[in-house]
Amino acid sequence: MADAPAEPSKSALKKAEKQAKMAADKAAKAAKQATLAVVGGKKADDIIGMTVSKTENFPAWYQEVVLKAEMIEYYTEISGFFILRPASMFIWNTIRKWFQERIEAMDVEEASFPMFLSSKSLEKEKDHVEGFAPELAWVTKAGDKDLEVPVAVRPTSEAVMYPYYSKWIRSHRDLPLRLNQWNSVVRWEAKQTTPFLRAREFLWQEGHTAHLTEELAGEEVLQILELYAGVYEQLLAVPVVRGRKTEKEKFAGGYYTTTVEGYIPSNGRGIQGATSHCLGQNFSKMFDITVEDPHPKGDEKAKHIHVWQNSWGLSTRVIGVMVMIHGDDKGLVLPPRISKIQVIMIPVGITKSTAPEDKARHYDQLEEIKRTLKSAGVRTDYDIRDGYTPAWKFNDWELKGVPLRLEYGPKDAAKSVVSFARRDTGEKGTIAISELSTEVPKLLETIQSDLYNKAEASFRSHRIEITEWEKVIPALDVKNVVLIPHCLKEKCEDKIKDLTTGNQEETEGPEQMKAPSMGMKSLCIPFDQPAGIVKGETKCLNPECEALAESWCMFGRSY
Amino acid sequence: MADAPAEPSKSALKKAEKQAKMAADKAAKAAKQATLAVVGGKKADDIIGMTVSKTENFPAWYQEVVLKAEMIEYYTEISGFFILRPASMFIWNTIRKWFQERIEAMDVEEASFPMFLSSKSLEKEKDHVEGFAPELAWVTKAGDKDLEVPVAVRPTSEAVMYPYYSKWIRSHRDLPLRLNQWNSVVRWEAKQTTPFLRAREFLWQEGHTAHLTEELAGEEVLQILELYAGVYEQLLAVPVVRGRKTEKEKFAGGYYTTTVEGYIPSNGRGIQGATSHCLGQNFSKMFDITVEDPHPKGDEKAKHIHVWQNSWGLSTRVIGVMVMIHGDDKGLVLPPRISKIQVIMIPVGITKSTAPEDKARHYDQLEEIKRTLKSAGVRTDYDIRDGYTPAWKFNDWELKGVPLRLEYGPKDAAKSVVSFARRDTGEKGTIAISELSTEVPKLLETIQSDLYNKAEASFRSHRIEITEWEKVIPALDVKNVVLIPHCLKEKCEDKIKDLTTGNQEETEGPEQMKAPSMGMKSLCIPFDQPAGIVKGETKCLNPECEALAESWCMFGRSY
Repeated sequence: MADAPAEPSKSALKKAEKQAKMAADKAAKAAKQATLAVVGGKKADDIIGMTVSKTENFPAWYQEVVLKAEMIEYYTEISGFFILRPASMFIWNTIRKWFQERIEAMDVEEASFPMFLSSKSLEKEKDHVEGFAPELAWVTKAGDKDLEVPVAVRPTSEAVMYPYYSKWIRSHRDLPLRLNQWNSVVRWEAKQTTPFLRAREFLWQEGHTAHLTEELAGEEVLQILELYAGVYEQLLAVPVVRGRKTEKEKFAGGYYTTTVEGYIPSNGRGIQGATSHCLGQNFSKMFDITVEDPHPKGDEKAKHIHVWQNSWGLSTRVIGVMVMIHGDDKGLVLPPRISKIQVIMIPVGITKSTAPEDKARHYDQLEEIKRTLKSAGVRTDYDIRDGYTPAWKFNDWELKGVPLRLEYGPKDAAKSVVSFARRDTGEKGTIAISELSTEVPKLLETIQSDLYNKAEASFRSHRIEITEWEKVIPALDVKNVVLIPHCLKEKCEDKIKDLTTGNQEETEGPEQMKAPSMGMKSLCIPFDQPAGIVKGETKCLNPECEALAESWCMFGRSY
Repeated sequence: MADAPAEPSKSALKKAEKQAKMAADKAAKAAKQATLAVVGGKKADDIIGMTVSKTENFPAWYQEVVLKAEMIEYYTEISGFFILRPASMFIWNTIRKWFQERIEAMDVEEASFPMFLSSKSLEKEKDHVEGFAPELAWVTKAGDKDLEVPVAVRPTSEAVMYPYYSKWIRSHRDLPLRLNQWNSVVRWEAKQTTPFLRAREFLWQEGHTAHLTEELAGEEVLQILELYAGVYEQLLAVPVVRGRKTEKEKFAGGYYTTTVEGYIPSNGRGIQGATSHCLGQNFSKMFDITVEDPHPKGDEKAKHIHVWQNSWGLSTRVIGVMVMIHGDDKGLVLPPRISKIQVIMIPVGITKSTAPEDKARHYDQLEEIKRTLKSAGVRTDYDIRDGYTPAWKFNDWELKGVPLRLEYGPKDAAKSVVSFARRDTGEKGTIAISELSTEVPKLLETIQSDLYNKAEASFRSHRIEITEWEKVIPALDVKNVVLIPHCLKEKCEDKIKDLTTGNQEETEGPEQMKAPSMGMKSLCIPFDQPAGIVKGETKCLNPECEALAESWCMFGRSY
């Protein structure tokens, strides 16, 4: 299952690393210098907000936001590994439930296969495994004894599972066989790792199915792809483009790969969202997974046919994409549907001179509002921590991305309203207490769709159809991805990457992040094809390619 | 988290292995000789039922039932690993949902920590890790490069998590910190592995919490233990004894361990069900997890105090215990609450001479009954596979343990009833169609409680209070566990094990499984203490021990 990332040029990588480090150093320094703004035993770096601007230094901003919003902790013991904290796991579990419900309805069943692969099974399917070989983690010892045969931690489970598909599938009655597992896989990346987007271990689901015919397999590939699009669009408010990968970018050993592709406005890069592969009969031939043909032609003796297989995977990467798209200089911005706390209520106008009985009554009212919202299905909490100012609390919950803040003070109480502030737009207003249970859910859905629409407009306006080669690099340089007429040939793609890779040494701004002069790669052949290609006539846009264009193909700098 | 198993004597182990192998060979032979009982493309070993009797050869029976009921597949690539098939994962997920809901209500949050431990963090807590060292799987290579520092796959996550507890817990306001993760852990056992009960990789949940005081930690230990008891008693219909582990058997490095202990009637062995540990301040001292004392005495300057920690784990072992207790010579017997299919409907009396329109109408009626039951919350399916006789289908669903079979034929239709057969007792009867939606749920609950009551009666009658040492071994030999007055000292326990270990070579019955002459170990000090021990007077039962008895302690041969 290729979550296969792009390879940025080495110089660009080094530069980005350097800049991220500088920004992190700056943040740490700022934290040290910060004075304690509150009473209580909290130490300084707990209370300081964001210090890096998203537009000024995007990689450092990202690193800071996932740390300070308590989504991620770096696992300093072993580089390239991350701890997913409760704020992340809530999102992942929301996605998991949503997806699990839908694949159960498709009769996909859950299984759990071992995390290790023997070197023997790896040899069976060399072509597929070649891509993963440099990243395999090898267990060679148990206790103080060397293992007779080393075992590798799974980077994906084709080679773990398919020997058993061969055993379990005896007859066409056993088809379709559809199994999914939720687990973690290990790919010991040599490249720079990034929280969620590229880690040496990550959580995902991997579905592996077997079908009687190409048609049945193909139907499922698209059903799953649509679910992946649903995770992005409906839960994470992230627009994606559905399409097929080129031969160069498809899953190693598969037949064809479909994908949902996202877009990061801050740096104009494309990012692979999730992939649903048809493996064809390639693996069933390697692993000898056959059934007797249930419909032999005429009087022919029934012959054995190889099953058609799919595999499909969605990883915690989705969380990173969501953070990058919606977050701002105040911190995380969470779409309401995946936010553990959708509404945070903060009492205001309560001071040291407020009479205890007034304070108590006010807090009782807060509790009542919370109950009202909970029964309306809204995940609500209030923040009555002593010793923190309302302003401090506002910042804290903004950093954590809670979609809607309700402020409630004696003045609001007098008017039977609550004041609200939207996290995404900052818009403020009041809602009558009597209308909370209808207005708040409505407002949350508005926030959800506004987030999506904003991101969708951004992606749409940065997906440029280009028919003149000279306009490609300038388009990339202003953070676009491009749609170009393309021959879909692997060699031509390699050439395009070379042609668009900058090799000049750029001057380094001390903190400012310039778009790295990374070459572009193909992201997908969108299912939704613009007009304009005349078959047998329109040429591939690559000036060094002689071939005719097959399709519009989306290219971009990419993760 | 010690799922620490007992160590049977080596000779007993070898014997059991030999017998299991013989039985498996016999089963394989029987499968080969079986004639095809059905049409269709199924191969012989798919359709043959159980061949080994539970009473005649329990280990072989167990191996056969988990395989043939399609719960487990042996992962032949690497020994000691098992594949959990959908029939197992449904049960595990049911348990997971039940438990997750309840710990969420306790404000336990979910996290996901890396699966690897650096050798450095291991050094930090040598005492605790000593027990796991011989079972650690070491990754020493990534791709073709040796790692600078080898990393171990987690056998449990104390050493992975607690460095971050030290970082995250800054003030008493951060307490309690309660995190749980659902994952798999690896313990490269040298001992014989058994599906579910002892595997080199297994699924579990591990909760790790930190509290301000011993009292708060202690409350949670018991809350969790009660949830573990609930998983066994309420979901799996398995009775357990709640208690505390002796010093010898407690979790390495912990303060005290509480446990739920089960009992396998077929061989009279005790089995540890799940454990909830109070770690005390042992780990917080090693990992430097402190907060300022929020209640310093008098004018004292606030001092730093080490937090009180718990850890608690429940593994897929629970499934194995359930299988062993309820299963019979026909196969699996599933308690309705954890059975994916609670009711299987099988059409009867439909023959080749049945008119197609009659058959279609009959199947429509089946569909309607299914809908009725589904809306009554009953997980129902029907089996209308062509080419299999009703008798074959009965056997197949009995093998798979479905709690209730409904047979429906033209004769039933004429009387507006369905015929039922209980999987657990074989009891048969009829239910009026008009009463299905009330009677079937009621019957399922009866099956659930009958299963529990039967197992509970068996455990109760085999838990014998003994006050004369001479009666201990005879009691063990007739499949009891024993309650004896005990001093609770570690050395005395070692001695008791020696004294009860048989060293005579027994004659080997070719297939019959004799109780192995395994020494007994302490299972727990039950919370529920019988009367009869006079403090300062009653002696420890061990004839070679001079000490006074502290408590009744439950001992037994054990997994």
